[in-house]
Amino acid sequence: MENYVHNIPTKVYFGKGAISHLDEALKPFGKNVLLTYGGGSIKKTGLYDEVMKILNEGGYTVTELSGIDPNPRIESVAKGVALCKEHNIDVVLAVGGGSTIDCSKAICSGFYYEGDDLWHMVKHVKGYKKSLPLVDILTLSATGSDFDGGAVISNMKTNEKLGGSYTYPSVSILDPTYTFTVSKYQTAAGSADIMSHIMEGYFSRTPDSELADGIAETILKSVIRNLPIALKEPDNYSARANLMHAESVACSGIPEYGKKSTGWPCHAMEHELSAYYDITHGVGLAILTPRWMRFILKKDPTCEWRFVRFARNVWGLDGEDEHELALKGIDVLEQFFRGNGIPMTLGELGITDEHFRAMAEHADIGGRLSNAFVPLTADDVVQIYTDCL
Amino acid sequence: MENYVHNIPTKVYFGKGAISHLDEALKPFGKNVLLTYGGGSIKKTGLYDEVMKILNEGGYTVTELSGIDPNPRIESVAKGVALCKEHNIDVVLAVGGGSTIDCSKAICSGFYYEGDDLWHMVKHVKGYKKSLPLVDILTLSATGSDFDGGAVISNMKTNEKLGGSYTYPSVSILDPTYTFTVSKYQTAAGSADIMSHIMEGYFSRTPDSELADGIAETILKSVIRNLPIALKEPDNYSARANLMHAESVACSGIPEYGKKSTGWPCHAMEHELSAYYDITHGVGLAILTPRWMRFILKKDPTCEWRFVRFARNVWGLDGEDEHELALKGIDVLEQFFRGNGIPMTLGELGITDEHFRAMAEHADIGGRLSNAFVPLTADDVVQIYTDCL
Repeated sequence: MENYVHNIPTKVYFGKGAISHLDEALKPFGKNVLLTYGGGSIKKTGLYDEVMKILNEGGYTVTELSGIDPNPRIESVAKGVALCKEHNIDVVLAVGGGSTIDCSKAICSGFYYEGDDLWHMVKHVKGYKKSLPLVDILTLSATGSDFDGGAVISNMKTNEKLGGSYTYPSVSILDPTYTFTVSKYQTAAGSADIMSHIMEGYFSRTPDSELADGIAETILKSVIRNLPIALKEPDNYSARANLMHAESVACSGIPEYGKKSTGWPCHAMEHELSAYYDITHGVGLAILTPRWMRFILKKDPTCEWRFVRFARNVWGLDGEDEHELALKGIDVLEQFFRGNGIPMTLGELGITDEHFRAMAEHADIGGRLSNAFVPLTADDVVQIYTDCL
Repeated sequence: MENYVHNIPTKVYFGKGAISHLDEALKPFGKNVLLTYGGGSIKKTGLYDEVMKILNEGGYTVTELSGIDPNPRIESVAKGVALCKEHNIDVVLAVGGGSTIDCSKAICSGFYYEGDDLWHMVKHVKGYKKSLPLVDILTLSATGSDFDGGAVISNMKTNEKLGGSYTYPSVSILDPTYTFTVSKYQTAAGSADIMSHIMEGYFSRTPDSELADGIAETILKSVIRNLPIALKEPDNYSARANLMHAESVACSGIPEYGKKSTGWPCHAMEHELSAYYDITHGVGLAILTPRWMRFILKKDPTCEWRFVRFARNVWGLDGEDEHELALKGIDVLEQFFRGNGIPMTLGELGITDEHFRAMAEHADIGGRLSNAFVPLTADDVVQIYTDCL
């Protein structure tokens, strides 16, 4: 078992009606709020009105930043920082999914960034930064940005999508009923994202971090059980609540405590896909993961025991031939994604091999992939992309 | 699934050599440290010298409070508060097991308590209190006090042992190697305490809080696997690390998120045993738990499904007759405790039925037992105590 550091200061209010804590969450920070959100779905669902009612009754002064895109852009970060400076913002309130929260984290840190070029901050300033406080209300079970300190920001001009550590939310309000209106496609893609966060850490060389592996397997099984229910019955509270509980823990680091770091290779490869083609993150991960699994199992058979454990403990498979069992676990994962409506080839997204070499070279920057569970070269990554076509 | 609030501000450094973070943990709070510990085992193991070297090199002024008992006493709390006031203490550093940390929490809160009578604070002041900062170095895997905000303080004059919420440690240093020297008896009793923290929450009416139940089952299985290894090989790092990881989460509330509250009936009953007879907490819990289980299973057969799940998912038992399976799960739990050297009757501890009625009446105060998983009357509690003789 490896050493770990646990340091998550975020307070979470989880459950139906958790928004009743919004005023007490914001109050300690001040009265000038920057409200951030995406394409306006919160106006359709009534959540925007609910939030504004609480803010108005609490005497807050509200500045708005709307239109934050999936794969949030550096331009939105810059706009948000300018608004915070102009309106003396005390606290940022993000209402939305992971993109809105990620963008808001970069805004909170960008407020104190001393340079002019915020893209330079994204590219070069490592680790947690002095930041404005952030409160969020989650509307999509996917990224886990509500319970981690990271954010991923995109620059479509340079075809770059870069992750980094910014700040933890001070308070996250997680009400599963806000996800009742999420489309089947986004529900499935979000679930693939949750599962990927777990699988990226689960496939590690450490055999004996029992709590971490048990949490990982529990979350995978819970998503496998609840995603089909949520697709069939979008307002099934129990299914939506279990997906939300799973997502908030999946990216927190907790399912990896005590385990050797793995490099999160599918995320490294997927960020390139999103940066070039602006696809849905969870869909890219779902497409890549089984192909990556088959590739590394072939490249390094010493990792087979992990795949056998995955097949047995997550999918409940059994059989005497361990190699067959390992492959079967990967097959059922791919079938699960496809069966829940996720397009499972890059071809279906209109992606060709045109940029595979450039993407592979860039994904490897910093040696992330050379330190992975099974180390990958740029050639390996090109092959994995090709297997996804 | 029920609503929950997550709010654990403690930073944890886990693993071999984690003490290297001690100086950075204390530094933000100031230079006047109250060092608290128990009967002096930390002097025998060399940990005291290691701590003092770091404190001396860091230029800290150290005041000491030693001799904190298991089932820590209100007298130690009072001594600690007086020392903090006299020496302008900035931060308390607890080095020991749950008793030392619990006592230190009450000291940290007692420092700001405005009355003269600290026992009045223990009895009547509910919820988290303004407190001095607390840093701890754990030396026993048992209570989980390093990752929760509660403490249990005893008054042997009034035969009372009372739990309450005080303050969370700011930083906990968890190095499994510090538990290599823990005796077989205390290792087993500590593991019973960990398991009890899980079982108290696991036996709940909520069927669908999947992550909580999965964490609970993982921790139980991990303790069941690692306790016998730690008893046989006291310096087996992996076994000690898994026990320590389990203990830090077991009492945090996390394994109960989303579940109906259960009243923690075995703790209510055990605190009476300790208050009257000053026994080892984990041993009292181990004796009570299987008897409580058999009693409630008989009293309310509608709770049988939980016991069936316990037998299947925790002990890997199988069988068609669900009632038999439920009883078998309880039997193997009792055998597990006995097989690991825990005395499994009150008679072996020299306890008779003399005070059972008074203890039962007191355990029920506040209606805690009437809100339990299966509600218990004072008569029920007398019967459970009697079954333990």
